Order: sequence, then structure tokens, then C-alpha cells
Amino acid sequence: MAAAGNADSARLLSPQLIHVACVCAGHNASRDVVTLVKSVLFHRRNPLHFHFITDTVANRILSSLFQSWMVPSVQVSFYDADELKSEVSWIPNKHYSGIYGLMKLTLTKALPSDLSKVIVLDTDITFATDIAELWGIFRKFTDKQVIGLVENQSDWYLGNLWKNHKPWPALGRGFNTGVILLYLERLRRIGWEQMWRLTAERELMSMLSTSLADQDIFNAFIKQNPVLVHQLPCFWNVQLSDHTRSEQCYTEVSDLKVIHWNSPKKLRVKNKHVEFFRNLYLTFLEYDGNLLRRELFGCPSQASPETVQLQAALEELDEDDQCYDFRRERLTVHRVHLYFLQYEYTPTEDDTDVTLVAQLSMDRLQMLEAICKHWEGPISLALYMSDAEAQQFLRYAQASEVLKNRKNVGYHIVYKEGQFYPVNLVRNVALKNANTPYVFLTDVDFLPMYGLYDYLSRKSVVQLDMAHTKKALVVPAFETLRYRLSFPKSKAELLSMLDMGTLYTFRYHVWPKGHAPTNYAKWRTATTPYKVEWEPDFEPYVVVRRDCPEYDQRFVGFGWNKVSHVMELDAQEYDLMVLPNAFMIHMPHAPSFDISKFRSSSSYRNCLNTLKDEFHQDLSRKYGSAALKYLTAQRNI
Amino acid sequence: MAAAGNADSARLLSPQLIHVACVCAGHNASRDVVTLVKSVLFHRRNPLHFHFITDTVANRILSSLFQSWMVPSVQVSFYDADELKSEVSWIPNKHYSGIYGLMKLTLTKALPSDLSKVIVLDTDITFATDIAELWGIFRKFTDKQVIGLVENQSDWYLGNLWKNHKPWPALGRGFNTGVILLYLERLRRIGWEQMWRLTAERELMSMLSTSLADQDIFNAFIKQNPVLVHQLPCFWNVQLSDHTRSEQCYTEVSDLKVIHWNSPKKLRVKNKHVEFFRNLYLTFLEYDGNLLRRELFGCPSQASPETVQLQAALEELDEDDQCYDFRRERLTVHRVHLYFLQYEYTPTEDDTDVTLVAQLSMDRLQMLEAICKHWEGPISLALYMSDAEAQQFLRYAQASEVLKNRKNVGYHIVYKEGQFYPVNLVRNVALKNANTPYVFLTDVDFLPMYGLYDYLSRKSVVQLDMAHTKKALVVPAFETLRYRLSFPKSKAELLSMLDMGTLYTFRYHVWPKGHAPTNYAKWRTATTPYKVEWEPDFEPYVVVRRDCPEYDQRFVGFGWNKVSHVMELDAQEYDLMVLPNAFMIHMPHAPSFDISKFRSSSSYRNCLNTLKDEFHQDLSRKYGSAALKYLTAQRNI
Repeated sequence: MAAAGNADSARLLSPQLIHVACVCAGHNASRDVVTLVKSVLFHRRNPLHFHFITDTVANRILSSLFQSWMVPSVQVSFYDADELKSEVSWIPNKHYSGIYGLMKLTLTKALPSDLSKVIVLDTDITFATDIAELWGIFRKFTDKQVIGLVENQSDWYLGNLWKNHKPWPALGRGFNTGVILLYLERLRRIGWEQMWRLTAERELMSMLSTSLADQDIFNAFIKQNPVLVHQLPCFWNVQLSDHTRSEQCYTEVSDLKVIHWNSPKKLRVKNKHVEFFRNLYLTFLEYDGNLLRRELFGCPSQASPETVQLQAALEELDEDDQCYDFRRERLTVHRVHLYFLQYEYTPTEDDTDVTLVAQLSMDRLQMLEAICKHWEGPISLALYMSDAEAQQFLRYAQASEVLKNRKNVGYHIVYKEGQFYPVNLVRNVALKNANTPYVFLTDVDFLPMYGLYDYLSRKSVVQLDMAHTKKALVVPAFETLRYRLSFPKSKAELLSMLDMGTLYTFRYHVWPKGHAPTNYAKWRTATTPYKVEWEPDFEPYVVVRRDCPEYDQRFVGFGWNKVSHVMELDAQEYDLMVLPNAFMIHMPHAPSFDISKFRSSSSYRNCLNTLKDEFHQDLSRKYGSAALKYLTAQRNI
Repeated sequence: MAAAGNADSARLLSPQLIHVACVCAGHNASRDVVTLVKSVLFHRRNPLHFHFITDTVANRILSSLFQSWMVPSVQVSFYDADELKSEVSWIPNKHYSGIYGLMKLTLTKALPSDLSKVIVLDTDITFATDIAELWGIFRKFTDKQVIGLVENQSDWYLGNLWKNHKPWPALGRGFNTGVILLYLERLRRIGWEQMWRLTAERELMSMLSTSLADQDIFNAFIKQNPVLVHQLPCFWNVQLSDHTRSEQCYTEVSDLKVIHWNSPKKLRVKNKHVEFFRNLYLTFLEYDGNLLRRELFGCPSQASPETVQLQAALEELDEDDQCYDFRRERLTVHRVHLYFLQYEYTPTEDDTDVTLVAQLSMDRLQMLEAICKHWEGPISLALYMSDAEAQQFLRYAQASEVLKNRKNVGYHIVYKEGQFYPVNLVRNVALKNANTPYVFLTDVDFLPMYGLYDYLSRKSVVQLDMAHTKKALVVPAFETLRYRLSFPKSKAELLSMLDMGTLYTFRYHVWPKGHAPTNYAKWRTATTPYKVEWEPDFEPYVVVRRDCPEYDQRFVGFGWNKVSHVMELDAQEYDLMVLPNAFMIHMPHAPSFDISKFRSSSSYRNCLNTLKDEFHQDLSRKYGSAALKYLTAQRNI
């Protein structure tokens, strides 16, 4: 405990648990709330407990995000907004936030009944100070006060904005509900649930609907019960809406603690000092969230079971092992933000749908539009990026006509960390988040033939009875070394380009083994699917059921990441069936950094061999003596 | 002025000017000091005046950096370390910081005589709080105290680290000089200059040399004059050296204000909480420095003449002009960090040396090694990057055997800002920082033929009397559409590859006009340089004197950036001479983002036309009626 320092900071530093509640629904709010959380974590010195009232989408995104973020001394709880809808759905509301804009009224009911105090925040809030300072204000409440709020910084509730403007009743300028100190225990005691309802019902008789959602009801309630409110200093909720009077706040105090982007225009709002505010916001928007995983000082955290397990695994590693770095990477938990952009997908009725599954990093972004043009079905993409790159990607996707019109693409961000490219981990994120019974496992630098989606989902999957048999359908792979390729419209055209030397079979020049077992000679004339046998180093692109084995995450960087997967498919006795009328073409690109980094390193190659051996041993252990053939095959090469 | 808020913070917020001094020499320290400055700027609320004692290298880097950074309410002064060397060069010193490690002793002499107080910082310091808090401690000095220091957090001065370890005399554990509050006015009054000299001379009789540079002398001085020192709380200089006892400091106070990376191992130092400290450091290392340009609140800044001029130019812009964004970009001042990596270049005696000049961004980094292998002469590269990317580049360059062994490459970072790629601004940074009489103006995706450097600098430049005539030597450009090119060793080999269709003349398929005037047919058989005439849209790669006109910075994004430059060369009556035995080859790459972003935009093309017209008008104004030919030529296409 702090003994030195001034008394005020010592008090703030006591490791008291601070509770924060937030209503969050949909993809966009789930992105916004991350920036809020980062700004809170950046300045905080106390353990925190976040309480999220979420719809299904936000729940899926935020629960996996926090699970993978592993921030010490941060707990997270979720509450189903759908279950709370009936509490507020009877209130007509014109605000753009919709029904979720009313949910803050239900917090005494939604949150655990033994929770006595909570700070409630909108998702468009940025903290510029330690949240413990705000929490400390609960101590300044008189015995009667139950709710802490900042005055509204617009003239809305004065009712003079336009002729016949008739706002809900409020005390003077009214209060803003973007930042609330909610004394839950006292609210329950005074019968808040009945009280706000009565207020709302009475006012709705004349007002017909709310304009500013919960804020109208809070204000009408306070007007009737002014002794219940504790007014917070204005800098705890500096409101950047249009016509804001917030300037009077911050020029007086020259100390901003909380910014509220409460204009639908958000960052584009007009304001003399908007550059200053935008900088604060951008600081956290692009801030590397991994840096927030730091331990709190003077505050021993109760480690989660995952953390304890991870710690134990890390301690088992031998720092002198020449493959230490590889094994260390394998244990790295990468932060994951699923469904980073808007996503909508309705399963097809016949249950034969196929998702294209791939992973990429920043340097392949320009492939996305082309892939979308070649594949109209659902796509699951995992993107390996830094926080700043994810924002760059967002801007790119929002500016692209092709991408912004496609809703059936799931974009999952895996945040960068460490020196290796954890390619199989990233692939698994894309694979696990496909929402169809079948997946086409491909790479981002390939373009599928036009119509491949239809061919697979309407024909092959049914014809080959994929639902009841263990099959991996091979899509033969070709490549071009030229930039300006006129993409073949048919198998016939492809074959003639092959004969002309405009196309080659994939990696024909450098690594023929990878695809030779596809048997391209046979494919030329094949009209029905044919079975081929597994061979060492075979790494075809396949269509399989989504419940296929995952990629082995020990293979990081480059080398053996697909080979090991196909080997495991074979070990599980998948039949490898080559599709006679399907093809895909690899488009040229400059070599990636990681490849050039490791191709030259002998220790990298040595470790890869060690990892291969260990993978073989694991296969034998899992699949018995039959799997020994992989080891033998390997040794013979 | 702050009226509200607690008294303590109100006091800190008074807009008092704070002075900071720092000794900085060489390329690496110049990089380090930027991270220190960022951490100070991030938390500060006061105007600051930085005083840098620099060698020539650091002066060049930091003066251009601050000039382009344009942070409001920040002044910068430079003092020549070379002029101060004689003050301390007589002191034998074993510390790795060399003679610069002693310069802090000379500050009373180096800094302006009317400067009364200054905070002195090492370059390996990171601030975690507002520096005004530290400045405020001057007020706690008794009348006698002249210097504020934190106790050393190692046992060094106790003299028990090893047998016969004999450190300089110190009070107990001694003091660390990484963070010093220096009361200059009082130091001058008590005769500090004579005092430290006498101390040093006396101790050197038995000690022979200093081990920890200035710190030994400060400590010996304090041991003799203990009443002069004001001991600062330990958290003002948490020292992360090996065997540090700093942990006792921060576990007690749980409030860290200044971190000092005073181990030669820097970030790799072993320490239980090193992750925490490293995160703090990385936060500022990769922080977007543009965000620190924000105005201070409650502190009207005295704008520099540059700022006033810029503000006026910005106000003249018409927001409704369809090319507003282009004109706005043109006025953006990009932060520039010259010589980001170690750089050494000795001019050749015959004054015929040629620098390869190019610009690039992250996605072309993989070209650097190849270019270095093809061109052994000096290179000036401007890199358009974010702060985070610059760090990625640094790691890449330090890991590359090829790059780290080349000292004659100047890497200049132009920091990203805005939505356009300011290609001509970036080119000009590379051009202006070439240190030879001649420059080869190329693009980063070209590889020069082997031996081009010798051919140009030893032969062409002399043969064509470049020193006394106005000439632009054209290096004919070719291209390959294939990745795996066996690079031609001679003109003969190149010609046969051209005949085979393995190579083409550059942009033969898409934009033949750009290079047609080179007259490739003539070049095939040419054995001596031949003159060609300028034609519209000609954009050859040329060798010119370094005093050639700069690129016109109004052309941002893609289009007309080189064309306008060659046009101006022609307007200045440069002779265009094609070199018979020189060539360069464009290597394939995926299309860049920016190109694909703008190719499709009609407003982009419209603005480009407007800008072209304005450029033509400017040419006529500058070069008279002769320049009308460009306008006519343009209209005829």
C-alpha cells in the first residue's frame, strides 16, 4: 500500500475494485467500445470489472476479445440485452440508438443484486484520466443522492432550439446520461424500477415518444426528485455534439477528464478544438492493446485459470532449447477481434453451403476485391494485423465499393505479437468462424475460377455425399508468373493457356512435389471426380466439412503449415477426391518479409525439422501404428 | 487560469515555461531522444524549451526534426558540443558514453547566462507523468541547495561489488545523474565551474580516470558539499540497470514517474517487472508524433513565423474548391527524421561521385537489399512511414546482413499524414540530402545494371563534362513481368532477352509514351551518348547535378510527378543525353494501394488536370514564352 506520496493519490491508489457498465449492440458499437476500454485501461491503476449488456453479436465479439486479451485484474460479465428488451420495448423512442438506448434504465434489474455501485458509460466515451478519480466521487454523495450526472452541454432541454420545440421536462439544461454514477443499492431501496416507469408513463401521455431515449426519462425523473441527483463537474463528460456549450467547461478548467463524442457525426463534428480531441481519440484507437496487458503495481491480481496454466507452460520451457523462440510463440495468446466489420449471413436451407476460408496480412489486402468478385458465397477471413493496421484496413474496406456491398464476409482480426507469423493459428481463427457445414481452405493469393462457389455448393458437395462420408475435395491449383492475366473462363481455356505456357501447374518450377499427387495429366481429361493417394509433402487446397481437424499451431512462420494439415486429414482417413471441373490460379506477388527472413536461416530449418519429428510422434500417438507411414515417408525423402 | 479543481493541480497548470537540457550525439542517441521527447510532450501541459548539446550529426537530425514537427509551445535551442569538448577532454573517462558523458558538467557555461533553472535528462529516460511536477520541486529547494538528484539504485559506490573495486567517493550509495534539477543561477554564483574542476583534478590524482563519466565527478563534488544537494524521491529516476535495487522504490510507492534505461542492455535488461516498463517505453516509441502537435489548453502559444504563415495559407484555401484536398495536402508539413540509421560517407577526391536517390514506403522494403547489391555507391532514400512502421523498418535493417554492413546509405523518414502519398515531397527529401555533386534519380522498384555506379561516376560524368554543362543523362529503362529473372550481365545479354520476350522496354504495354523518346532502336547499336529531344509525357530516369530543380510538390498521389520534373529540366535547357552502355530494369510488384484507390476516381483525374494547368502557367511565368510549348504540346494530346 502507498505510504509515500500525497494523501489524495494514496487514496486513489487503493486497489478497490471498480465496476463499469456499458450497453453494447452490433458490430460498430463493439469496435467503438474497444477504444473506450483502451482509454480506461491506459490510465487505470485499480482492478476493474466490466459489465456488458449485449446483443448476440456484441457478446460473441467481446467475450472472445476479452478472453484472448488476458488483461490482468480485469473481469468481464455479460448480460443478455434480448432478455431485457421487454422491460423497455413499450416505450416509443425516436433516438438513433434504438431500443438499446433505453437499456440503462434496467441496470438495477440486469446487474447482480449484490452490486452496490457502478459507473455507466456510453460506447462513444474516451477517458483522459484514471477512472478511479471518477469512482471516488461516490464518496461525496450525500445520504440521499443516488445518481451522479454532468449537466447537459446543449440547450436542448431549454426548449428554445426551434419554434414549437417541446423537449421532455428537465431541471434547467438537464443532464447528460453518457457518464453516470449509479448507486444501485440505494436505487433498489427507493424503488427506482417503479419510479422511472411511473414517470415515463405519465410523460408519454403528452410526449408520445422519447427523443433522446433513456436521457429523457432520467431527466423527467430528476425534475421530480431533484434531491436524488449529485451533479458532477462538467469535465467528467465534455460533450462534443453540435451546438455544444462544452467549451465553457474546458476553457475554465484546462483539465479534461472524459470526452463524449455524442454527435452522430462523431469525429467529423465541428468544434474549435476538435483537433485536440481527435488526437486523444486516435491515440487509443491505434494503441497497441497488447501493451495494456501489464500487471498493476501494488495490486496482486487473482490470476485466471488460463493465466495460471499459461504461466506454468511458460516456466516449463527451456530457454537454452534452440527452438525456444518457436515454442514460446506457440504459447502466445493472440488477441482476437471477431467480425470486425458488419456481417450478415443466413444459412441456406439445403445445408450444402461452403465458406471460403483464408488468412492474410496487410500486404495482401489488394487481393480482397478480386476474391470477392470470383466467389459470391460466404467468406471467412482472418487478418493478422496491428491495431493501427486494423484501422487502416477499416478505412480501406469502407472506401471500397466491392467490399462495402458484401455482407457475407466475416473479417476476424488476429492482433500481431512476437517475431513469427503464427500462420496456422490465424488459419484456425478463420476456420472456426466459418458458419456453413463445408469450408474451402485456400490461400489469399489464389483466385478461384468463376462459378466455383456454385459448382461446390450446388453440385460437388451433394454428388460426393460429403454429409455422410469423410472426403477432402481437391481443387487443382495453377499459377501465372504474369501480372496481367486474362483469367480463363473455362477448363478448356485454362488447358490451352497451359499449353501456351501462359499458365503452369502450381509451383511447377520450385516445388512440384507439393501438388504432383493431384495428377494433372489425369485431370486434363477427367470428367468425374477421381481419388488420389496421399504422398509426402502433398499440400492441395481442399473442400472439407467444417468439423475437420484444425491446423497444427506449432508450425509458425513458413514451412509445413499446410502439409501437416493434409497429413492429419489422411491419418483420419479422409478420401482425397480431385474435382474434374474446378480450378484456382495463384496470382503473382512480391516475396513476403517473413519468407525472406527465414529462408536463409539454418537454425530456422533445424527447428522446423525438430518440430516435424515431434508432430510425427504426436500423430503416431493419436492414430496408432498406421501413422508410422508418415515418419517412414519423411525419412525416405 | 484554473479556478476549479484541486489546488495542487491548479498550481501545476500555470503556464510556466519549463527548460530541459539534454546532451545528444550521433545517430542512435538522436533516435533515442525522440522517444524521451514524445513521453515528455505526451503528459505536458506547459510550454517547453529544449536545450540540446549536440554534435554535428545530432544537430542536423534534431534541428530538421523539430522544424518540421511544429509542436506548439515548444522552443528548441542547439549548442555545439565540439566547442565544449576542450572543457572536459582533459578528463580520462572509461564510460561507454565517451566524452559526451562528461558534457553535463559544462552546462552553466554552455547554456544562456540568464537561464536560471533547468532539468537535465539522459537520452534513455521515459516520462510517465507531467514534467511540471518535477519542475515544481525546485520550489522545495532550501536556499543553499543547487542540485536535485535521485539516489543511485545500485551498490556501485559502496565499493563492494568485487574484490578491489574502488569507486569514486560518494555519499553512501551516491546519486544518479540521469535526471538532474540544476539551479544554474546559484551554481554560477557559488563558482561551480572552478569547484567541479578542483574536485576532478584532486580525485584524478588517485583514481586516474572516471568510470561513470560525469556521475563520478558530481558525486565526489557532493561528498564534499553535501548541503548543496536536494535529494529527490526515488520514483523520479527508476533505474533499470543490472543488479538494480530500484524495485524497493516502486513497490513502495506504486507510482512511477520517470524510468531510466541505464543499462547498456536497455530493453533487454533482466528485471521482474521489465514487461511493465517495456510497455511504457514502446507506447512512446511507436506513438504517432503528429498527435503531439496539439495546442495546449489555457496557454495561448506564441506561434512561430512558419506557423503564422501556414495558418494564413490554410485560411486562403477554399473548402468548396473540388481540389481542396490536394491543395490542403500541399500545405501539410510532414515531420522528417533525417539519417534515421548510422551513416558515414567520405566524399571522393575527384568530385565525380553519384548518389542513387529514391523514395519508398513499407511495401517496397524488400527491394532495398537487391538495390544495395546492384549499386555500391552512396544512396539517399526517403521512406514514407508511420512512427510504428519506422520501428519495424529499424528492426528489419538491423537484422539484414546486407543493410547493416552498408554505411553509405542515408535513410530519411518522412512521417505519414493525410490521405495522399506526397510522392514529390518525399523525393525532394531524398534529393536534398544527397551528399555528392551528382544524383541518379530513380525509383525503388528498379534494379540498376551491375556496375552502373562505376560507369556513371568514373566515366559518364567526366566524359560528358557534367561539372560545366547542363545535362541530364538518361539511363534506359526496361521491365520484366516475371519474378524469377536472371539479371542480364551485359548490354548484349539484355538485347537478346529483349528479343526473346523475357524483357520489354519499360511500360511498353501500358504507357509507351513515357519512355519512347529514349529511342530504344537507336540505343541498340549506340556506342556513344546521343542527344534526344523532350516530348510530352517523357519521364526518363536521369543523372543530373545535385543542384537541379526540385520536384513540384503540388503533385501528390499518383500521376505527373516525374513528368513535371523532366519538363522543368527541359525548360531550364538541360540536354537530354542517352547513355549507350547503361540500363535499369523494373522488377514486378503488386499494384500499390494508392494507385488502385485513385485510378478509378474521376474527381482525382479532374484535379490532376487542374493542377497540370496551373503548373504550365507557373512554368510560363518562370521561363517566359518558350515554356508555352509545354501547354501547346499538352493540348494537342
